Amino acid sequence: MKNKRVFTTSCRVLYGDTDAGGVVYYAHFLRYFEKARTELMRQWVCSYREIEAIGLIMPVTECFARYKASAFYDDLLTIETEVCNLRKYTCQFNYRIIRQDDTRIKPTLLVKGYTIHAAVNQVGKLTKLPEEIMEKLRSLTTPDNTTVPEQND
Amino acid sequence: MKNKRVFTTSCRVLYGDTDAGGVVYYAHFLRYFEKARTELMRQWVCSYREIEAIGLIMPVTECFARYKASAFYDDLLTIETEVCNLRKYTCQFNYRIIRQDDTRIKPTLLVKGYTIHAAVNQVGKLTKLPEEIMEKLRSLTTPDNTTVPEQND
Amino acid sequence: MKNKRVFTTSCRVLYGDTDAGGVVYYAHFLRYFEKARTELMRQWVCSYREIEAIGLIMPVTECFARYKASAFYDDLLTIETEVCNLRKYTCQFNYRIIRQDDTRIKPTLLVKGYTIHAAVNQVGKLTKLPEEIMEKLRSLTTPDNTTVPEQND
Amino acid sequence: MKNKRVFTTSCRVLYGDTDAGGVVYYAHFLRYFEKARTELMRQWVCSYREIEAIGLIMPVTECFARYKASAFYDDLLTIETEVCNLRKYTCQFNYRIIRQDDTRIKPTLLVKGYTIHAAVNQVGKLTKLPEEIMEKLRSLTTPDNTTVPEQND
Repeated sequence: MKNKRVFTTSCRVLYGDTDAGGVVYYAHFLRYFEKARTELMRQWVCSYREIEAIGLIMPVTECFARYKASAFYDDLLTIETEVCNLRKYTCQFNYRIIRQDDTRIKPTLLVKGYTIHAAVNQVGKLTKLPEEIMEKLRSLTTPDNTTVPEQND
Repeated sequence: MKNKRVFTTSCRVLYGDTDAGGVVYYAHFLRYFEKARTELMRQWVCSYREIEAIGLIMPVTECFARYKASAFYDDLLTIETEVCNLRKYTCQFNYRIIRQDDTRIKPTLLVKGYTIHAAVNQVGKLTKLPEEIMEKLRSLTTPDNTTVPEQND
Repeated sequence: MKNKRVFTTSCRVLYGDTDAGGVVYYAHFLRYFEKARTELMRQWVCSYREIEAIGLIMPVTECFARYKASAFYDDLLTIETEVCNLRKYTCQFNYRIIRQDDTRIKPTLLVKGYTIHAAVNQVGKLTKLPEEIMEKLRSLTTPDNTTVPEQND
Repeated sequence: MKNKRVFTTSCRVLYGDTDAGGVVYYAHFLRYFEKARTELMRQWVCSYREIEAIGLIMPVTECFARYKASAFYDDLLTIETEVCNLRKYTCQFNYRIIRQDDTRIKPTLLVKGYTIHAAVNQVGKLTKLPEEIMEKLRSLTTPDNTTVPEQND
């Protein structure tokens, strides 16, 4: 994620996000993904509410996460998000969740993953997003993005 | 809960229900409450889907829980539920969550609580449930139920 | 909540917080309560991590919520929190969750509730919090707080 | 999933599992995955509690889900699970979530996915599971399983 169109937001780990292993439960990272892409959309494209208002929804059709290190209660996490693989009816968001840690020189990459979304209308038919929204999404993507996060980072 | 109209169901504690304290997170018991009242309704009254189908919903207007002992990962919990305080537009469910424990003579009461629900139509106006449903609910209630679970049990 | 020791924080409603009724699921407000009291503690008393570091935990022994109006996807909520009923081993937090709404003159009160917490050591025995922490908590409480939020507001 | 070592369990969709789109929120399927693999382990290998009791944990290192159709409130879902790709320190579970639908001849595949788990000790070091457990897991796997669920089914 070296391109300049990376959106950054943060979130604090609640007790309710952790499990008896003392770390964030694996499903909760998908909530962090949602928080990050929602904020990216609101600030750079349009709010998801506006998409719903024109009769479209963008359900997740695929998601992936690789867990590299644990997140703990009260950690302040940074989520980096970028848009890629914009197609006629679908687009992808890539995520990197990082813990800022004052005691180490390098921040720790905890999770990387992606979600793919399809634009559909109210009866579930694939539908193109309005050109105005597509244009904004297009301006955020880079040509060389790959679908699946690479294994080595 | 000595009356005979107590509905009993069970649920197994998932890792995802626990928190870093090693016990079930306090908000998750409200999910167990939901599971229990849904099953009671389905088996003894009518499914909640049928209530939605006639244009009514029954949102929670109040909930209460007293936490007496912890529930742990993989515990098999019993949830006892009863209907009480049936009024024109509202009704109450009382819950007791118990851990069956082979190594002790007595099961352990973990949580007791209640939820109060109002019947409203699609514009949020208080609306009477159909008499057929009210009749079934009435048959499940006992005159001497009190609103708030007593402190001593 | 007219006293000046009210702590204010905010949170944005995720899709993952809502349910098929189109509104925030009732159990999720307990997560918002947690977020609010955690931030109050961090900023005004000490972080919950520091309490754990001295071998104490503060489990919820009781919680209550009254739901007055619905919260919707993407709402920006304000959570007002105050400490009250400080006792030897227990304390209470009161919460008010409010939606700021530009189109109305008055903000809308959605939920009010409380949680009661006990300080216990690692074997579950009631234990007094360190005097330094008690002193800070004491400075936040007002004598006339009542345990249960009043019905009329 | 044509081999005979497919474990089948079921779960009912709670209101708390759904979102404002009227369908199950994408992260909740990971909870259903957990429920399914936990039950498979308990019935065919050993309970996860027993693994913890010997000082090992099996965190998720990778997860994937492809969402093909929506699950709705109150749906009774079937989860098919199988073990595959058993390696020295890791193993994989494949899942298929299906809705039984009385009104259709064929059940509907809603979600397929997998999780990969690593066995680690209490300081996070990769550790081999006891041979007794490995033997049981081995007996459940088939040689031709592939890591990533195929796109066509």
